[in-house]
Amino acid sequence: MTEPLEPVPHAVALPAGFRAGAVACGLKKQGALDLGLLLADQPVAAAAVFTRNRLVGAHIEVCRDHLARSNGLVRAVLVNARNANCATGRQGVDDARRCCRELASRLRCPPEQVLMASTGPIGAPLPTDRIVGHLDALLDAVAPDGGMAFARAIMTTDTHPKVASTRTEHGLATGFAKGAGMVHPDMATMLGFLLTDLGLTTGTMASMLQRVAARTFHRVTVDGDTSPNDTLMVLGSSRTPADTAAVEAALTEVGTKLARQIAADGEGATRLVTVQVRGARSEAEATDVGRTIATSPLVKTAVAGRDPNWGRILSAAGRAGIEFTAERARVWVGSAEVFADGKPWPDREAVAHRHLCDEREVVLGVDLGLGTAAADVWSCDLTADYVRINADYRS
Amino acid sequence: MTEPLEPVPHAVALPAGFRAGAVACGLKKQGALDLGLLLADQPVAAAAVFTRNRLVGAHIEVCRDHLARSNGLVRAVLVNARNANCATGRQGVDDARRCCRELASRLRCPPEQVLMASTGPIGAPLPTDRIVGHLDALLDAVAPDGGMAFARAIMTTDTHPKVASTRTEHGLATGFAKGAGMVHPDMATMLGFLLTDLGLTTGTMASMLQRVAARTFHRVTVDGDTSPNDTLMVLGSSRTPADTAAVEAALTEVGTKLARQIAADGEGATRLVTVQVRGARSEAEATDVGRTIATSPLVKTAVAGRDPNWGRILSAAGRAGIEFTAERARVWVGSAEVFADGKPWPDREAVAHRHLCDEREVVLGVDLGLGTAAADVWSCDLTADYVRINADYRS
Repeated sequence: MTEPLEPVPHAVALPAGFRAGAVACGLKKQGALDLGLLLADQPVAAAAVFTRNRLVGAHIEVCRDHLARSNGLVRAVLVNARNANCATGRQGVDDARRCCRELASRLRCPPEQVLMASTGPIGAPLPTDRIVGHLDALLDAVAPDGGMAFARAIMTTDTHPKVASTRTEHGLATGFAKGAGMVHPDMATMLGFLLTDLGLTTGTMASMLQRVAARTFHRVTVDGDTSPNDTLMVLGSSRTPADTAAVEAALTEVGTKLARQIAADGEGATRLVTVQVRGARSEAEATDVGRTIATSPLVKTAVAGRDPNWGRILSAAGRAGIEFTAERARVWVGSAEVFADGKPWPDREAVAHRHLCDEREVVLGVDLGLGTAAADVWSCDLTADYVRINADYRS
Repeated sequence: MTEPLEPVPHAVALPAGFRAGAVACGLKKQGALDLGLLLADQPVAAAAVFTRNRLVGAHIEVCRDHLARSNGLVRAVLVNARNANCATGRQGVDDARRCCRELASRLRCPPEQVLMASTGPIGAPLPTDRIVGHLDALLDAVAPDGGMAFARAIMTTDTHPKVASTRTEHGLATGFAKGAGMVHPDMATMLGFLLTDLGLTTGTMASMLQRVAARTFHRVTVDGDTSPNDTLMVLGSSRTPADTAAVEAALTEVGTKLARQIAADGEGATRLVTVQVRGARSEAEATDVGRTIATSPLVKTAVAGRDPNWGRILSAAGRAGIEFTAERARVWVGSAEVFADGKPWPDREAVAHRHLCDEREVVLGVDLGLGTAAADVWSCDLTADYVRINADYRS
């Protein structure tokens, strides 16, 4: 989208115990920030979820190993853009390990307390010397107000940095993300980092992150293509026990904001699409139906054409593998129920059409008439610009 | 594509015992053929496979019922374009039954020996009176040389009629298809009809059709969206026992030709893409990987951009749910192995790029390095024209 959903903030507060920063080490052109760092004053509890793609970036192998060996304690997360360090074989893993080791030696911490994430074109060797050569400058750059610099450094085809924050009476949760959609000249990556000073323990945070991811980042689709480098991490600086439900709610809120920003910034997109599935037997089934609708090229091109095409929505729902009866289903576009009582209501389509024309955030809904479970999934429209961006020959 | 893969024939031979024909009954504009009929001289053995979509067109409910009640014996198949008779509730099923009944009374056969298939926009009532009013003219029109008229009548956004035929020493197999891709203003349907005078019995043909479909029509993807009306039928006019393997090979050959024509005629397509998967543990796994690559918007836009983007191919394979090691995989575009021995070969990309530029039928291949099973899947490139065609507001 040409403009972000909300104005990009000038600054974002970091939870207690965290600093952030970025430098330009020459991976991006024209001196843009491309190497970011999240730094905890002390080792903090961390957890991560990674891509389900069978092809995985080198950083994922290293992160999994480091989290296991450090018992989930992390001092720093190093992130580079413009190089995915993926399909780079054994050398790629060695390169990622060397970056972590070099940073750890400067922090005087064990190497396994440093994580790394890479995003950008796949197949090229990581310019490790260049990254290592800028670690000292990066450590000089980190500061409590360095969040926006970090958010900018991890951008690829993102049109703006993606940050979100929520404050509760007990503390702060702040998140950063980049993606999704695909980077010229190769696939992009969805990276997400959640920081909080709300009380979290290593025992609970891994399962909590799974639940948060399931309701936020795993409900975004731009084009159905996953990246080998997709990574979501949470780092918690407080070990004071806290109300788990409140922490999870805060992280889910931040994750939701970031997920919506990612969908809205999908390549070539002009609309953020929220797919509302209602009346399902379970949240998992509702999510499956929502994802199928949100991924359908027909539904996405209909939104691009401002066409309240209930037939495409209902048909996409029909191939999600969930048994339901069309006669008992309802379909709405914005506030207009365009299919209900077993038949279309063509006279309501004008209202639906105006919703698609006038609103930047549009709603497509379906009630399956099976139960009471619900889920929202976020996507964007599919425009000729998406094709143009991704059809460009690598150059 | 602007031109068919092969020149459209002026005539297509029908197997012994079959006639075909079409009339214009006013469903399409400007007097184009829109109501087709396949007629067997005697009741013949038939089988069908239908969409896996949970939303199904009315004709599918009627066909299932008729095939069950007739023990798989069929005299006629009536096909209309420009109306899917889908999401039309009980009335839609009654309308389809009435069409079959009216045709059966003219043929003096039981209603259950007549099948029907509909394709076009969904949600509108079937203009049954109009169809029934043209049945006498349709019966006058059927002839042994009426195959091309039938093929034209079932077209929707197809740019040309799709027919294929293969002759063995024992007889003939001829097929007709329409689709895929999506019809303005709503989703299209893939319809396929296979006729043969090679020996087939009701006992074996249903399972044979499943196998034929799995290797032909189920290996085509234009955009991953299935239609509620997808239907494939086979009708066999000979009950003389024949070499089952030879019959299956003939039907598979006809189905393959039709599947390739459908992929090549995908909306907005400029290239027929054959995805070759090799080195899989099973044909089912190879097909899954092939379908995932063939459906990937990133892979399809790369072909539109003539970009031999091995990273997108490998990454799409990676999300098919099959465990494999990138280091042991190979990726080729045309004759150029652009990823092999665990690394990219950038100097081979010029040859691959020329293949994508110069050939109308392009090959993308991946060897998973797991076993010896293989599968081909057919698709097309994803162009800005696809978006334009499907984003047009219904009017």
